[in-house]
Amino acid sequence: MRGRGPAMAEEAAVRAQADAVRRLKQDKADPDEIAKEVAKLLEMKAQLGEDEGKHKFVLKTPKGTRDYGPKQMAIRERAFNAIISCFKRHGAEVIDTPVFELKETLTGKYGEDSKLIYDLKDQGGELLSLRYDLTVPFARYLAMNKITNIKRYHIAKVYRRDNPAMTRGRYREFYQCDFDIAGQFDPMIPDAECLKIVHEILSDLQLGDFIIKVNDRRILDGMFAVCGVPDSKFRTICSSVDKLDKVPWEEVRSEMVGEKGLSPEAADRIGEYVQLHGGLDLIERLLQDPKLSQNKLAKEGLGDMKLLFEYLTLFGITEKISFDLSLARGLDYYTGVIFEAVLLHQENEHVEEAVSVGSVAGGGRYDGLVGMFDPKGRKVPCVGVSIGIERIFSILEQRLEASEEKIRTTETQVLVASAQKKLLEERLKLISELWDGGIKAEMLYKKNPKLLNQLQYCEDTGIPLVAIVGEQELKDGVVKLRIVATREEINVRRESLVEEIRIRTSQC
Amino acid sequence: MRGRGPAMAEEAAVRAQADAVRRLKQDKADPDEIAKEVAKLLEMKAQLGEDEGKHKFVLKTPKGTRDYGPKQMAIRERAFNAIISCFKRHGAEVIDTPVFELKETLTGKYGEDSKLIYDLKDQGGELLSLRYDLTVPFARYLAMNKITNIKRYHIAKVYRRDNPAMTRGRYREFYQCDFDIAGQFDPMIPDAECLKIVHEILSDLQLGDFIIKVNDRRILDGMFAVCGVPDSKFRTICSSVDKLDKVPWEEVRSEMVGEKGLSPEAADRIGEYVQLHGGLDLIERLLQDPKLSQNKLAKEGLGDMKLLFEYLTLFGITEKISFDLSLARGLDYYTGVIFEAVLLHQENEHVEEAVSVGSVAGGGRYDGLVGMFDPKGRKVPCVGVSIGIERIFSILEQRLEASEEKIRTTETQVLVASAQKKLLEERLKLISELWDGGIKAEMLYKKNPKLLNQLQYCEDTGIPLVAIVGEQELKDGVVKLRIVATREEINVRRESLVEEIRIRTSQC
Repeated sequence: MRGRGPAMAEEAAVRAQADAVRRLKQDKADPDEIAKEVAKLLEMKAQLGEDEGKHKFVLKTPKGTRDYGPKQMAIRERAFNAIISCFKRHGAEVIDTPVFELKETLTGKYGEDSKLIYDLKDQGGELLSLRYDLTVPFARYLAMNKITNIKRYHIAKVYRRDNPAMTRGRYREFYQCDFDIAGQFDPMIPDAECLKIVHEILSDLQLGDFIIKVNDRRILDGMFAVCGVPDSKFRTICSSVDKLDKVPWEEVRSEMVGEKGLSPEAADRIGEYVQLHGGLDLIERLLQDPKLSQNKLAKEGLGDMKLLFEYLTLFGITEKISFDLSLARGLDYYTGVIFEAVLLHQENEHVEEAVSVGSVAGGGRYDGLVGMFDPKGRKVPCVGVSIGIERIFSILEQRLEASEEKIRTTETQVLVASAQKKLLEERLKLISELWDGGIKAEMLYKKNPKLLNQLQYCEDTGIPLVAIVGEQELKDGVVKLRIVATREEINVRRESLVEEIRIRTSQC
Repeated sequence: MRGRGPAMAEEAAVRAQADAVRRLKQDKADPDEIAKEVAKLLEMKAQLGEDEGKHKFVLKTPKGTRDYGPKQMAIRERAFNAIISCFKRHGAEVIDTPVFELKETLTGKYGEDSKLIYDLKDQGGELLSLRYDLTVPFARYLAMNKITNIKRYHIAKVYRRDNPAMTRGRYREFYQCDFDIAGQFDPMIPDAECLKIVHEILSDLQLGDFIIKVNDRRILDGMFAVCGVPDSKFRTICSSVDKLDKVPWEEVRSEMVGEKGLSPEAADRIGEYVQLHGGLDLIERLLQDPKLSQNKLAKEGLGDMKLLFEYLTLFGITEKISFDLSLARGLDYYTGVIFEAVLLHQENEHVEEAVSVGSVAGGGRYDGLVGMFDPKGRKVPCVGVSIGIERIFSILEQRLEASEEKIRTTETQVLVASAQKKLLEERLKLISELWDGGIKAEMLYKKNPKLLNQLQYCEDTGIPLVAIVGEQELKDGVVKLRIVATREEINVRRESLVEEIRIRTSQC
C-alpha cells in the first residue's frame, strides 16, 4: 500500500492543474472559477504534503550525533582498551549510573553551561535530564550510598546541546572516560596520580607531542584578589582568562575592562601573571612574590603546587607538565588543582611555537561537590580526570584513513567451506563442532556456494583459515585446512581440527 | 544559609495560622478576613515549598533505574563477556548508534507499546525520543547507509516507560544484547544460527534448565484464517494468544469472545491449535492437517519450520527447542520465525511440570522493517536475537549473594608498601616503575601508612602480592616481595621485579 496513496494524489493534482491551465488558456474561465480552482489545488497540495510526511522518513541521526560502523568501532575499541588498561593498572573499580538523572540533581552545578542540558519531556512523573558529565552523577552516587573512599572509573556517553563541530570531534553525544579518587588523603598524592594517568594514556596512544597545563583555583582566586578584582567579579574574570588559549591577551584585556567593567590597572596586573608559565622555578619565584605570598589562598595553592611537582619529578613526567597561570577551566565545581592536556601540532619543524590543536583530557579537584548532595553537607574530597575520547578517536580515524593499514572488523579464525554441492548439512555439522570447541567460525548462508566465492570472502574479511569438507575427506575422517595467505592445504584429522586451528591462529 | 530560610518561613506560617484559628474561635473574625487569612497562608505555604525545593535534594536515581556499583559491575562484565564471546565466535561485527533517534524514526514500529517511548523536551530543533530497542535503529542504520548484507551485534541501553519490577530484573533503563543477520540468503540458515546462539549463551551462563519456544508469524496468521478470524482482528487476537504463557486458556478465550467479539466457534478452533507444542512430529502432523495445509501462508511457515528443525538437529540442540503454537510475541515488525527462551525453575524434583520464571531472550525474522526506511521501499530481510541481560544479571547476582564466593572488583597485582616512615618518595618511585612496566599496582595515599594497614588493605581487596621498600632493601638494590596468601617473603632484585610479579600473578 505504501507509495500508492501519494502517487495517486499526485496524479490527481497534476491532472487538475493541467485542466485549470487549459481552461485559462482557452479564456473560458471566469475569475471566481479560477479562485476556486486555485483553492482546490492548494488543498490537494496540502493533502499531498501530509501524505508524503506520513510515508517519507528523514533518514538521519539527530543533530550532533553519529553512528559508529564496524570499522569505526574497531578503532574506538583500540582507544578504549588503552584507556581501560591504564585505569585498571592504577587499581580502579568501575561503576555505572543511569543516562538520565532527576533534573534537580544537575541544577546549579554547571554555571552558564546549564543551558546546554537536554531535558526529557514531562510525560507524567519525575522531571529528568540527560547527564551532562560523569562527575555530578558520581558525586550523587557517593552521597546517596554514603561512600567516603573509592577509586573508580566510568566510561559512558554524556549529552550537551552545544554547537557541534563534528570534523573536529565535537559532538552532542560523546563518550567521557573518567577516573576519580574520592577520600581524605595526604595532599597531592592522588592529584599526582591523575596527571601520571593522563601522561600514560597519551603516550600509549601515540597521538604525538602533548603538554599538560596545570594550575590551581586557589592560586587564581588569590591572584584575582591581589590584583584588585572585586570578589563578585572572580567568576566572570575567570571565564575571560579561560579564553587565553584561543585569543591574544589584548582581546581578553579589553573584554575585562570594556564588557566586564574591571579597572585597567587591575587588568594589567592580571596580565602580568597570566602570561607566566613554567615549572618548579616559577612556583618558587611566585612563592617569593611580595603580593601573592601575602594572600593565604595563593600561598596554600602554591605550596601544594610545589609538592605536586616534587611527586611528578619522582614519576619522571615533569617535562610534559607546564604550570600555567592562564589555565582557568569553566566548570563551577573545581576547588583546587586543575589541569588540561593539549596536543601540540608541529606544523613545520622550523616554526618555533608549536600550535595547539585542542584539549584531549582535563580534570581537577572538587572537594565541595559531594557535600552539595549530602543532607548534612558532609564533604568527600575528590580529584579526577576525564579523557576526551571523541577527539582522540577522530585523530586515530584520520591517521588510519591516511595509512594503508587494513583493519579487521571480526575475529573469525576459520571459514567452513565446501568445494562440492549438497554439502550444506556437512558444513552445518562441522561449524557446530567448531563453535562448541570455542573456535570463531563462519560459513556462507547459501546451500551451494562456489569455492571461489568462499575464498574471496576470506580475502575480503581477513579470515586466515578455510576448513573445506568434501566427499573424500568425509570418507577419510579428515578436513582439508587451507591457509589463506600461503594457499597451502593440509589434511587434518577431524578430532584434531579444533586444536590445529587454535595453534595456527594463536599468533593472530 | 541552607535550612535557615525555610525554617523561618515555616515558623511565620505556623504563627499566622495559630492567630487565624484563635480569632475564629473568639468569633471576632468576619468572613472577608478569614478569606484574606487563608490567601496569606496559601501564599506562605507556596513560598515554603519553593524554598525547600531549592535547598533539599532528593537523593535517588530516576524511577525504574539503578546504579551499578563495583560488585554489580564485576558480575555484569562476566555476563557480557560470555555474550560477546559468543557473538564474536559467530563472526559478528559491532556497531553503535545514538541513544536517541528522531521521534519519527520510532513512530509506527511498536504498535500499542509506542506509549512507552520516552520523548525529549522540545528545546528547539529536532523532536527526539530515546530508543525503545536496538532493532529499529539497526534498520534505520541499514537503510541510511544502503547496507544490504551484514552480521552485527550491538550492546546498549534502551528505554521504556513501563511499570518497573526491579526485583525481577524489569527496569525502565536496561541493556539489550542484540545479534542480527541482514541479507538475502537461503532459507532458515541464519534463523537456525540465531537459535544456536541463544542455546550457546544460556548453556554457557549456567542459568539452569531452559526451553526455547519457536513459532512463525505466517503459521499464526494462517491458523487465524482457517479458524475464521476476520483479517481485521488478526493483531488483536494475536495479542490475546500472547498471554497464554501467563493465564490459562479459559481466560484468553473469554477475552477473545467477550472483549474482542470473536465468535465462540472460532475461539474454540484456535484453542485446539494453540495448546499444541512439540517437535518435528507436530510439524509433520500439521502439514497433514486438512485445514492448515490448505492455507498458503501456514503451509509456507510449516515448510520452513520443518527445514529449521532439520538444521537444529544438525546443531544437536532440538531437545531444548519447542515448536509452540501459542507463542505470538508483541512487536509489530516480525514477519516469519519468532522465538523466545524461558528459564525453567524446577521448584521441586517431584513436581511434574517445570515452572517458567520468565523470558531471557527473544527474537525473530523481520523482513519488512528496513524497507519502511528506504525511500524506494527496498527490502533487506533480517533475523535477529536479543538477550535480556538484566534478568540474567539479577539471577547471577542472587546466586552470588547466596554463595560464599568473594568477588574481586579490581585486578591489582601488587601493593607497594613500606615498613618504615619517610619512604613516600621511594614508594612513588617504585610504583611508577611498576606502572611503566605494565604491572597493575596500588599504594595507600598516605605519607606514613602502618604496615598492618597496608597488609589489611590487601586482604580486603584480594591483592595477592606486596612489594615492600625499606632502608636495607634500598641499599641492597632489592625489594621484599610478600605473597599475601602464604605470608612468604622473598628478596627480588629491583630490575627483575616486574618480571617476577608477572610470573607470580599469571595464573590469577
